[in-house]
Amino acid sequence: MTALLDFVAEAPLVDHHCHGVVTHDPGREEFERMLTEADVVSPLGVSLFDSLIGLAVRARCAPVLDLPKHAPAQDYLGRRAELGAGEVNRRFLRATGTTDFLLDGGFLPGSLTTTAEFTDLAQARAHDIVRLEQVAEDVVRAGTSAAGFAAAFDAELTRRAAGAVGVKSIAAYRVGLELSGARPAPAEVAAAAGRWFAGIEAGAPVRLADEVLHRHLIWAGVERGLPVQFHVGYGDSNVDLHRCDPLLLTGLLRATRGSGVPILLLHNYPFHRNAAYLAQVFEHVFADVGLCTHNAGFRASALLAELLELIPFGKLLFSTDAFGLAELYHLGSTLFRQGLSDFLRTALAAGELSEVDARRLVRLAGHENAARIYRLESR
Amino acid sequence: MTALLDFVAEAPLVDHHCHGVVTHDPGREEFERMLTEADVVSPLGVSLFDSLIGLAVRARCAPVLDLPKHAPAQDYLGRRAELGAGEVNRRFLRATGTTDFLLDGGFLPGSLTTTAEFTDLAQARAHDIVRLEQVAEDVVRAGTSAAGFAAAFDAELTRRAAGAVGVKSIAAYRVGLELSGARPAPAEVAAAAGRWFAGIEAGAPVRLADEVLHRHLIWAGVERGLPVQFHVGYGDSNVDLHRCDPLLLTGLLRATRGSGVPILLLHNYPFHRNAAYLAQVFEHVFADVGLCTHNAGFRASALLAELLELIPFGKLLFSTDAFGLAELYHLGSTLFRQGLSDFLRTALAAGELSEVDARRLVRLAGHENAARIYRLESR
Amino acid sequence: MTALLDFVAEAPLVDHHCHGVVTHDPGREEFERMLTEADVVSPLGVSLFDSLIGLAVRARCAPVLDLPKHAPAQDYLGRRAELGAGEVNRRFLRATGTTDFLLDGGFLPGSLTTTAEFTDLAQARAHDIVRLEQVAEDVVRAGTSAAGFAAAFDAELTRRAAGAVGVKSIAAYRVGLELSGARPAPAEVAAAAGRWFAGIEAGAPVRLADEVLHRHLIWAGVERGLPVQFHVGYGDSNVDLHRCDPLLLTGLLRATRGSGVPILLLHNYPFHRNAAYLAQVFEHVFADVGLCTHNAGFRASALLAELLELIPFGKLLFSTDAFGLAELYHLGSTLFRQGLSDFLRTALAAGELSEVDARRLVRLAGHENAARIYRLESR
Repeated sequence: MTALLDFVAEAPLVDHHCHGVVTHDPGREEFERMLTEADVVSPLGVSLFDSLIGLAVRARCAPVLDLPKHAPAQDYLGRRAELGAGEVNRRFLRATGTTDFLLDGGFLPGSLTTTAEFTDLAQARAHDIVRLEQVAEDVVRAGTSAAGFAAAFDAELTRRAAGAVGVKSIAAYRVGLELSGARPAPAEVAAAAGRWFAGIEAGAPVRLADEVLHRHLIWAGVERGLPVQFHVGYGDSNVDLHRCDPLLLTGLLRATRGSGVPILLLHNYPFHRNAAYLAQVFEHVFADVGLCTHNAGFRASALLAELLELIPFGKLLFSTDAFGLAELYHLGSTLFRQGLSDFLRTALAAGELSEVDARRLVRLAGHENAARIYRLESR
Repeated sequence: MTALLDFVAEAPLVDHHCHGVVTHDPGREEFERMLTEADVVSPLGVSLFDSLIGLAVRARCAPVLDLPKHAPAQDYLGRRAELGAGEVNRRFLRATGTTDFLLDGGFLPGSLTTTAEFTDLAQARAHDIVRLEQVAEDVVRAGTSAAGFAAAFDAELTRRAAGAVGVKSIAAYRVGLELSGARPAPAEVAAAAGRWFAGIEAGAPVRLADEVLHRHLIWAGVERGLPVQFHVGYGDSNVDLHRCDPLLLTGLLRATRGSGVPILLLHNYPFHRNAAYLAQVFEHVFADVGLCTHNAGFRASALLAELLELIPFGKLLFSTDAFGLAELYHLGSTLFRQGLSDFLRTALAAGELSEVDARRLVRLAGHENAARIYRLESR
Repeated sequence: MTALLDFVAEAPLVDHHCHGVVTHDPGREEFERMLTEADVVSPLGVSLFDSLIGLAVRARCAPVLDLPKHAPAQDYLGRRAELGAGEVNRRFLRATGTTDFLLDGGFLPGSLTTTAEFTDLAQARAHDIVRLEQVAEDVVRAGTSAAGFAAAFDAELTRRAAGAVGVKSIAAYRVGLELSGARPAPAEVAAAAGRWFAGIEAGAPVRLADEVLHRHLIWAGVERGLPVQFHVGYGDSNVDLHRCDPLLLTGLLRATRGSGVPILLLHNYPFHRNAAYLAQVFEHVFADVGLCTHNAGFRASALLAELLELIPFGKLLFSTDAFGLAELYHLGSTLFRQGLSDFLRTALAAGELSEVDARRLVRLAGHENAARIYRLESR
């Protein structure tokens, strides 16, 4: 927590990928479960407060709730419950300095705030990102045939994308990122839908996990000219992380580079250097270290410095990937600011850039890149 | 060698993975060969003292032998021979501050101290780790049939595991870590044993390298409730390092997470961030940066900081993977302490944690995690 | 730009892998295109000066052209044009402190200086590296049969290698680095050549991309006893970076380790730690961080520190992989010096090595290793 450079502390941010917050008061176990990507608290005796993110909550969030830095976990959770979720959510969201939140409402939507509720809590603008796989699964639940799937999906995507600023694929979670670059032909899509539906009829849940269909969804987004976000790298235990290296997208990136559609690589850890490489050599590729920013606590500065080795400053974005706990929006933004500030302080002290350069980098990464790519000013 | 924080310098350690020491006086070439993972000294003109581990020996080990820091390699080896292996071994092992050594005696057992000899040299407790593949190979050497292999292995493992605190798999060295999660059925095991034995009859050495059989051995360890160690990542030139990414174990980790049996990922370099991810999302997974700690010299601090980005502090362990040279126990432990101390000094100075937190992290990683996982207090 | 240690600033360098320079004055767009591995300037609104390499040009190159540090890009390019390419090339090449340049003249030879022209500009010695694939493609363009290919290639390689100090493979760019260790038999080579020629007759360009033939070329280099350079890792958008991990060469490295022929792994980013591992465990393997040194700007120090974790100092080399723009030779060498100096300052301050050790490391990495491997003193 070296003091932030003033122009970093004051920079407005666009959080180009996050989710809603929960509106109830979580108990300790639920809080710990939502804190990291672990889905259970270990029966082998480990609290998730014993981690860099746990320390960051106690060091960086406690003061927002009027507690001393490093307050013990129990005190922290007690104070949180005392203030209540409404007040806690308002405090943390408003402390972020974020002007625009881009919300992916496609994961566990029932348990989180809607976009309108979020806007009200955060006193900031919120925009929708459409999760492609959710659209496809909803279309299937509503009933369609293999031959009719593509048209039904297309109609539903058109409806939902009307007010949205981008789309997102979670192919990484379902089949990994080794996606062919070719746009699937209608007959391939129908055949793949047929296989999917046969599985559902045999009792499988409605869960899309088919390389052809993920690709079809992605191309549908590209065709609409909407920025396409990809979950990349780090996630929970459902991810096969070795199949989520962004380099596996190389073929698809080559195939889409003529489209003029921005491709956004989210999170990327521990492959963030690979993502930076892609953002350098492909003119339509952008990247962040999203989800890992808060999980790595004060080591977020190290990750950001690694990302910055190759990424052009016009390709770097900010996101928190915060989900559920209001702390995560605050941690994501304060640690992103810390990372930028640490990087720039080092570079300024060494004479590697001027303050004019430093201010420009912060403007680009903090909000200008996102505003340009998602055309937020026209909204 | 920034001065160690006092509570790091004084912390008792459990070295949860190491081997015995040699009891003769090695000459220069043998010393260099045992110093790193290189198996020959390069005919292209390079001394292995010209490396971070070589500098670490001269900077950190020389004073233990009453020499000035940075003593030349020849002086160092001369003094070492003068003192003799017995005295050298005693000095280095006792300088580590290790209370418990967990010894894998399965590699080149004839050339190293036994557990009893080691205890005497180190004046500390020593416990056995059973190398699964060695048990299987010994069973085969003793004579068994394909149909009888599983039962013979089972009986021998029961015998050897009686006094042991854990088991270890070196599948990484033989077939890589892309192991299926499924427990092999008895018929599959018998068939795989049959293939193995046919190879031996045709003249192949008794060397297990079969995905089904490695998996069978691992499940046998899990079934006994014994912690299972895996060699992961960095090793000598016999390793196909690209097949040793711990992420390849994801399927097996999913399959074993309900067992309550701890899985220990050893070494992990250069995939240690991947190991930390696994330790976060799987409640039964633990990790260290053994072996690389001494090989990377003063850069060990950087590796530990990277591991700490995601790993919960309750999942971090200490090991040296020292083998043969007494220097390696000393370097592994002093560099681990240096890494923890550097990390905590930075974090304390930045206000990212309190001294109470720092002390707790050291206790957990230094000995409490290992004591809990291997149930050392009950011994 | 912490002041360089004097013995680092003054060390002579051997740049063991670079290309020629352009002799015309590039406009802004052409300059940006040549600055990084991006092949187009993004239509999404990003200048490539907004990157660490862009900052490095303005901070480190501007003063060489008599401009203040951090001069704006337009001013920089204006001054560059005013001085003219000849003067610019002379200033930057002579500012490097390089005594010997090893030039791969095989990429876009028509647009760059020849070896003789380069020598004159740089006032230093220049040596040739023969690009194996170019020889093969020239042989095919000159006309040969599938059965005659191996002999024709052999004759032409002998002719070109006569005055050269090494050969280079760009298999990474064509088929990736998953090359078998086996030397292909003559019949396999003829069959592969037959497939290649059939493709050319069917209209494909003369572009070698066949695993068997790349391997044949590499073995031809090994057989001549010439050091073999490999492009590894980072490159432009034509690279499938996930197929360019140096670990994929493990089989070939095992097969060639008895040959006594040095294998040089170039660039390696983001797999440079993997390259360092290979350089430790295989006695004939050497590595650098070439191309990435200038692309990562002041973060080059971080990359070099990571490479140094495992690489023996007798295995570390210096290269710029500079191509076209004279700035890249200057940036590559000044950032390499900065990286060594930063690393050594840290280590000296911490007492991890002596100044004698530090000076030795600089001599080895800066020029002695290259002089020994390429036998430059006998020339």
